[in-house]
Amino acid sequence: MKKLIVQKYGGTSVGSVEKIKNVARRVIKTKKSGADVVVVVSAMGHTTDELIDLLIKVNPNYEPREYDMLISTGEQVSASLLASAIQAEGEKAISLTGGQAGVVTEDIPSKARIKDVKFQRVRKELDDGKIVIVTGFQGIDSKGDITTIGRGGSDTSAIVIAAALKADVCEIYTDVNGIYTTDPRIVPEAKKLKFISYEEMLELASVGAQVLHPRSIECAKNYKLTVHVRSSYNDEEGTIVKEVSSMEKRNTVSGVAADTNVVKVGILKVPDKPGVASMLFTELANAHISVDMIIQSVHEGTGADIAFTVSKDDVKKAVEVTEKIAKKTGAAKVVSDGDLAKVSIVGVGMIGTPGVAAKMFEILSNEAINIEMISTSEIRVSCIIKKEFAKKAVTALHKAFGLEK
Amino acid sequence: MKKLIVQKYGGTSVGSVEKIKNVARRVIKTKKSGADVVVVVSAMGHTTDELIDLLIKVNPNYEPREYDMLISTGEQVSASLLASAIQAEGEKAISLTGGQAGVVTEDIPSKARIKDVKFQRVRKELDDGKIVIVTGFQGIDSKGDITTIGRGGSDTSAIVIAAALKADVCEIYTDVNGIYTTDPRIVPEAKKLKFISYEEMLELASVGAQVLHPRSIECAKNYKLTVHVRSSYNDEEGTIVKEVSSMEKRNTVSGVAADTNVVKVGILKVPDKPGVASMLFTELANAHISVDMIIQSVHEGTGADIAFTVSKDDVKKAVEVTEKIAKKTGAAKVVSDGDLAKVSIVGVGMIGTPGVAAKMFEILSNEAINIEMISTSEIRVSCIIKKEFAKKAVTALHKAFGLEK
Repeated sequence: MKKLIVQKYGGTSVGSVEKIKNVARRVIKTKKSGADVVVVVSAMGHTTDELIDLLIKVNPNYEPREYDMLISTGEQVSASLLASAIQAEGEKAISLTGGQAGVVTEDIPSKARIKDVKFQRVRKELDDGKIVIVTGFQGIDSKGDITTIGRGGSDTSAIVIAAALKADVCEIYTDVNGIYTTDPRIVPEAKKLKFISYEEMLELASVGAQVLHPRSIECAKNYKLTVHVRSSYNDEEGTIVKEVSSMEKRNTVSGVAADTNVVKVGILKVPDKPGVASMLFTELANAHISVDMIIQSVHEGTGADIAFTVSKDDVKKAVEVTEKIAKKTGAAKVVSDGDLAKVSIVGVGMIGTPGVAAKMFEILSNEAINIEMISTSEIRVSCIIKKEFAKKAVTALHKAFGLEK
Repeated sequence: MKKLIVQKYGGTSVGSVEKIKNVARRVIKTKKSGADVVVVVSAMGHTTDELIDLLIKVNPNYEPREYDMLISTGEQVSASLLASAIQAEGEKAISLTGGQAGVVTEDIPSKARIKDVKFQRVRKELDDGKIVIVTGFQGIDSKGDITTIGRGGSDTSAIVIAAALKADVCEIYTDVNGIYTTDPRIVPEAKKLKFISYEEMLELASVGAQVLHPRSIECAKNYKLTVHVRSSYNDEEGTIVKEVSSMEKRNTVSGVAADTNVVKVGILKVPDKPGVASMLFTELANAHISVDMIIQSVHEGTGADIAFTVSKDDVKKAVEVTEKIAKKTGAAKVVSDGDLAKVSIVGVGMIGTPGVAAKMFEILSNEAINIEMISTSEIRVSCIIKKEFAKKAVTALHKAFGLEK
């Protein structure tokens, strides 16, 4: 059967007429290699931000439905321009909106999830010999209204469409060459990974590696879809995200990441009554605040301290909610600290290799870096440290776990 | 029953955030007067031209379907911004694309005609108390593809939607106060007409008055829809286009117009064989060139001269076609002259008032203006004259037919 490749290009990759022409040539090359090609595009460059600026001027308290109606035009523009650029080179192409491509979402404006992809139209256009360009980040709901699907939207669109079409691979084109053992801007010795498992990618994404949104990885994992993260500026092989067999010889740790977008919120001397923590985290969840780490420490006689971390964006709301709870329960005080970083090591090799966490703590201790909070999963260990030590910590961990080889 | 008003705002009326807010206030005022309101909008200011510029850079020979996909975003942006501006003032509103509003067109990209308006969604939103904003100039075809409907599109959209919804009136907001007896920039004494018949409006539009596209007037006439042409910058009553009873006392002539977009093409000394004219005009029609006036004069012994007028946009193609025919038939020569204007008088009062054409010729003759070609309909007389005399001719006709009173 003919190969089917889904390619996704982000906003910077289609940011100008010249860049769109470049993408057109790359897409045509893939098509000429004998594959069917579906391309998912984001809006050009800063289009989305410019549209949002306009909207805020018209109505700062805009309704999500009208927001979707407005910003979905950004991808429609880039999709039709890319289709035209491909046609200019003599290849057959057609652009489709999310709705035309059969991307059906929940009836929730601005943060809908994709429910289904009715791929008949896309399949028909492919069978007609066309390269099909689909607008990322959007679909239609049951009423026929345009919806957008929130953060990481275009990656998720590409992966969901690739899964529905049973594509051989979903190529995510971006401005980096692939996934690295750590951020090359921090550690010049960082190495590009040839392969990475969904689980590792997911953990890396959730601790601050910005290449793929966790949502889209989760989705690729569910469909066992091979994802290839690569650069739109060169022909280098990037990093393949796929199911990695445990037979392959691998490093225990495959990546180190640092997230400096972390704030710790503490509620001090909470009277020792049952249900306080539950009340606090229920309220935070109701306010759509996503809490990362949690520590509770009990001091005899003076009640408990509860500390948790949230992302910088949520800190104002989180403190408000926590202060309300503090008042209600008679806690002493709410404090917050933003000078923090979360440093993480990730690797499927950790499973069955005892002592990886201990080794991490030892490395940090040797560098005289104090650990404020710790969280672990099967394949990840994360430590909250002072932000000023983040670079030092990443460099030391990268070296000590042998990632530069 | 509740009154239903359809309003159409052109690109200059929604050309900036401030102007959109103005339109929002005007729309809300209409709604608060107790009517249901549907608003049809064009793209903001120069958006459409900017998008076309981008497209030409990507592909000068773009396909009409992708053109539609691209430029239809312009109206989507202005529609959603207007809905948001109305919501900012506390009124309920919703924007709909042509497709969502049920505007179904032929499967002909870029110049589709509207076949049907499935108005259930619009009706439902109105019944929910919302002001409904619909993107002008576009619809969807049987495949679900976005189509645009060509010149005069947004006026036609508004009128077709108004007709489908059986609206009480379709208000066309523009940058002039209404329809005048002639162009006030040429003749300062020009008077605004309170009423004009569809037929007169149609003739005026076809001879160069740019306010409403003939297509949209034709459509209003078919549905006997009352159209109110008025300014978006003030609250003055404009001009009502409707069926005008012959009982009403009216001027014989209601308007004078000049069109300087006229080129005469001549084919000289065509050998006197039957079928030459038919061959020529069939070929011109096949090339989608719309021919206005035609004169044929026979010179004994040397064959016939045929002259016809076309709009400036079509002259290059028209000359090409004519030269082909000249070669085929052995005609002597093809000439063209662009320094011409068409001056017309229009009025339903001409029916049953003999001598109106004669009076026009006399007035022009008194001004020493030579007439090169003449064409007439039941309610119009048009003369082709040298372009340099256009202003003089219009001024004289306007005065002589008593239009400044």
